[in-house]
Amino acid sequence: MKAVSEPDPGLAGELAAVLGPGGLLTGGAQREAYAWDNAEQRHPPWAVALPENREQVCAVLRVCHRAGVPVVPRGAGTGCVGGALAVKGGVILSTQRLNRVLAVLPEDRLAVVEPGVVNGELDRLLLPHGLFWPPDPSSARSCTIGGNLAMCSAGPNAVRYGVTRHWVLGLTVALPDGTSMRTGVRTTKGVVGYDLTQLLIGSEGTLAVVVEAVLRLAPRPEARRLLRACFRSMEDAVRAVAGVMGSGEPPSALEFLDPAALALLRREGGVAIPEEGRALLLLEVEGSADELGRKAGEMLERLLPFDPLETFLAASEEEASRVWAARHALSPTLTRIAPRRINEDVVVPVSRLGELVAGLERISAASGVPIVGFGHAGNGNIHVNLLVDPADADLMARAKGALDRVFRLVLDLGGTLSGEHGVGIMKRDHIHWELDPVALDLQKKIKRLFDPKGILNPGKIFGEGV
Amino acid sequence: MKAVSEPDPGLAGELAAVLGPGGLLTGGAQREAYAWDNAEQRHPPWAVALPENREQVCAVLRVCHRAGVPVVPRGAGTGCVGGALAVKGGVILSTQRLNRVLAVLPEDRLAVVEPGVVNGELDRLLLPHGLFWPPDPSSARSCTIGGNLAMCSAGPNAVRYGVTRHWVLGLTVALPDGTSMRTGVRTTKGVVGYDLTQLLIGSEGTLAVVVEAVLRLAPRPEARRLLRACFRSMEDAVRAVAGVMGSGEPPSALEFLDPAALALLRREGGVAIPEEGRALLLLEVEGSADELGRKAGEMLERLLPFDPLETFLAASEEEASRVWAARHALSPTLTRIAPRRINEDVVVPVSRLGELVAGLERISAASGVPIVGFGHAGNGNIHVNLLVDPADADLMARAKGALDRVFRLVLDLGGTLSGEHGVGIMKRDHIHWELDPVALDLQKKIKRLFDPKGILNPGKIFGEGV
Repeated sequence: MKAVSEPDPGLAGELAAVLGPGGLLTGGAQREAYAWDNAEQRHPPWAVALPENREQVCAVLRVCHRAGVPVVPRGAGTGCVGGALAVKGGVILSTQRLNRVLAVLPEDRLAVVEPGVVNGELDRLLLPHGLFWPPDPSSARSCTIGGNLAMCSAGPNAVRYGVTRHWVLGLTVALPDGTSMRTGVRTTKGVVGYDLTQLLIGSEGTLAVVVEAVLRLAPRPEARRLLRACFRSMEDAVRAVAGVMGSGEPPSALEFLDPAALALLRREGGVAIPEEGRALLLLEVEGSADELGRKAGEMLERLLPFDPLETFLAASEEEASRVWAARHALSPTLTRIAPRRINEDVVVPVSRLGELVAGLERISAASGVPIVGFGHAGNGNIHVNLLVDPADADLMARAKGALDRVFRLVLDLGGTLSGEHGVGIMKRDHIHWELDPVALDLQKKIKRLFDPKGILNPGKIFGEGV
Repeated sequence: MKAVSEPDPGLAGELAAVLGPGGLLTGGAQREAYAWDNAEQRHPPWAVALPENREQVCAVLRVCHRAGVPVVPRGAGTGCVGGALAVKGGVILSTQRLNRVLAVLPEDRLAVVEPGVVNGELDRLLLPHGLFWPPDPSSARSCTIGGNLAMCSAGPNAVRYGVTRHWVLGLTVALPDGTSMRTGVRTTKGVVGYDLTQLLIGSEGTLAVVVEAVLRLAPRPEARRLLRACFRSMEDAVRAVAGVMGSGEPPSALEFLDPAALALLRREGGVAIPEEGRALLLLEVEGSADELGRKAGEMLERLLPFDPLETFLAASEEEASRVWAARHALSPTLTRIAPRRINEDVVVPVSRLGELVAGLERISAASGVPIVGFGHAGNGNIHVNLLVDPADADLMARAKGALDRVFRLVLDLGGTLSGEHGVGIMKRDHIHWELDPVALDLQKKIKRLFDPKGILNPGKIFGEGV
């Protein structure tokens, strides 16, 4: 595999011929636009391919495979772990023009889409059918289905609906050598042969490029209602999370905010929260319009034993939207208030959340690194943000030590290092902390089976070790 | 790999030493008891291993792997495709003594179980926690979780809850050479590395032997209510299925019975159904006790546009249980009324069900082979039963032709040859009709990666072609 950083005129000609006018970008500014994703590292590709159909995807791969040039699949570039970065140079294969919704079949409860379809756009199309596709990353308004599939990304909904992999029935993909392959089914059941569909989901674009996906759909809840509950301590709040999750119907969202995140929500979101409040839960219940009041009341009752300082039921959808917008803005806000933040998405069993948040406080105090924690507590999935400054070498070193301690703590509590962001380049040095070495070895063998030349998204997940 | 049909004293000694007293069965009658599963073919193993713990599972595999002797994992033997049969001789590895529920963690919404736990037993343990594990094969009272995982089996619940793979978070398995491997997570989210857990589910015991599983749990519905709707024609009934599935909350069961199945339900189940009725739907709604009446009423309303001859709401749980028992008895009843039946579990998109049932009628009429159809219509999953007689060679030949036509029809309609039974030995000659050759080839390569000596459940899924 060649690490190509400068255009090779011969290869460019071949790719341009395959892709047609406007299908290959090689200009400096154009390459720069694809040099970044949400991991905030710069890796300009050698060129950007914009295929319009699956034949062009296959052709791009064929050409690059023959030449031994890396190909990096890319959706909207909203990922947090550098998954869409051309860290070994080569060609970015953007799915942005593969953006057609090919079918919506309400009776079959499925949709057939190309990978470049934006989540929000699919949602808009499903609305009149009373259906929806549950995965809802914070970036749902701009991220693509292909990115969701690559990372098995999730969002608040997962506490009720499960994660991306539960909502995909079949795929058509292009293998690294440009061969097309169909996996799975177009039905809501199917058990013929090994489930390659599920193997591909979450493989971060290292095994194949999705060109079409059959998505399983859920009935759209008629209405949703937002509640919030403010607590005197983080301990009370996480005990309430465990209480809610310990029995009964789960909410459709159960989000936790620690004191620092709460302060941001108060300040930036204009949400009136008592000063003594040290932790906040956002909960959402859903159902038919006429049962929603009762359900919200029942959820409030489930919170009361945990002694909230205040509970609050959003009066309107509009008010709920405002709070959700403030919640979704937490992540971008953090990138404003610190020169840099290290953003992790660890998960622990819900029953161990108390130990996690206590441990984060300890690690922050001991290291002097500010840590802001919030996230999908109903899944035990907390976004741990270390606020740092690349100009402060001492702080950066302490942050590295603190991060290692966070990861050790998470694994000691029976958790995982990533709930929805994936590994990419950001966590590749840590996956051996979590994965059974036998399983890691088998995964690398599967990578080599799919991609013997190692051209597809090289350097991701396994680093140099494949 | 040796096909061993007679005991090898040296190997028996090694296995007995590993398994301890009573852990290895080699007597003729004992071997005969494990020579059968629901596929009704006789394949006596050379011996039966009954490990009590995962170390013994690994040790049995190590010994057999070294000797090149087949190992066939087996749960309760309720599978329909010969998955648990020692078709190449060798050792049956029964999970019947690996039957402990290791943990039930309500706050984490998960249970940790050994593979030999019976579905019904797990359900009983989860009841007081207000939780349940959704997969519900007809054999739930006797089948094991390990079998569910091996086949990715499902049942009526799947229309609402999805299939087995959606309810498994992580596994500990023994690889064919006896190495232990941990996959997945103990949390409801996790995206570190490739999802080997999902690759193993549905692999029919050909890649590894599950020794422990982390199961994701759902809140148990407070109550369920059974409705039935009788129709003048199969066309009306399947249109009603599409109508119900086309919008709104799905029922927790949506079962279809064709005229022949309906006649059996009437006769054997003592269910009073109008004589003019040519098709029956069984539907179940679920929810809290106080909303159940409204939900049942709404479901009846959704059926009315399809002109049912009669609708009926079960007055009591007991009445519902009686109808369900009669429904579950259909399959065993068929084995009584015909010398043999060929039992397939094909799936088509719900929107194509009408074409499927019309096609089945045509194929039955043309071939003179009685076909009885019933099943999980909400998933498009119909159990197609061909009633045959091994003593009638002509009928058997016509049945073979009819079955091929059924399979062709299903695939033409965008369906799959198996929704929940799997491939085993019964469908292995047909999987290339369905699977993309590129995908089939990759699956065989994955099999060889996990099991280069081919000792684990040989002859299943891929036949001789691995």
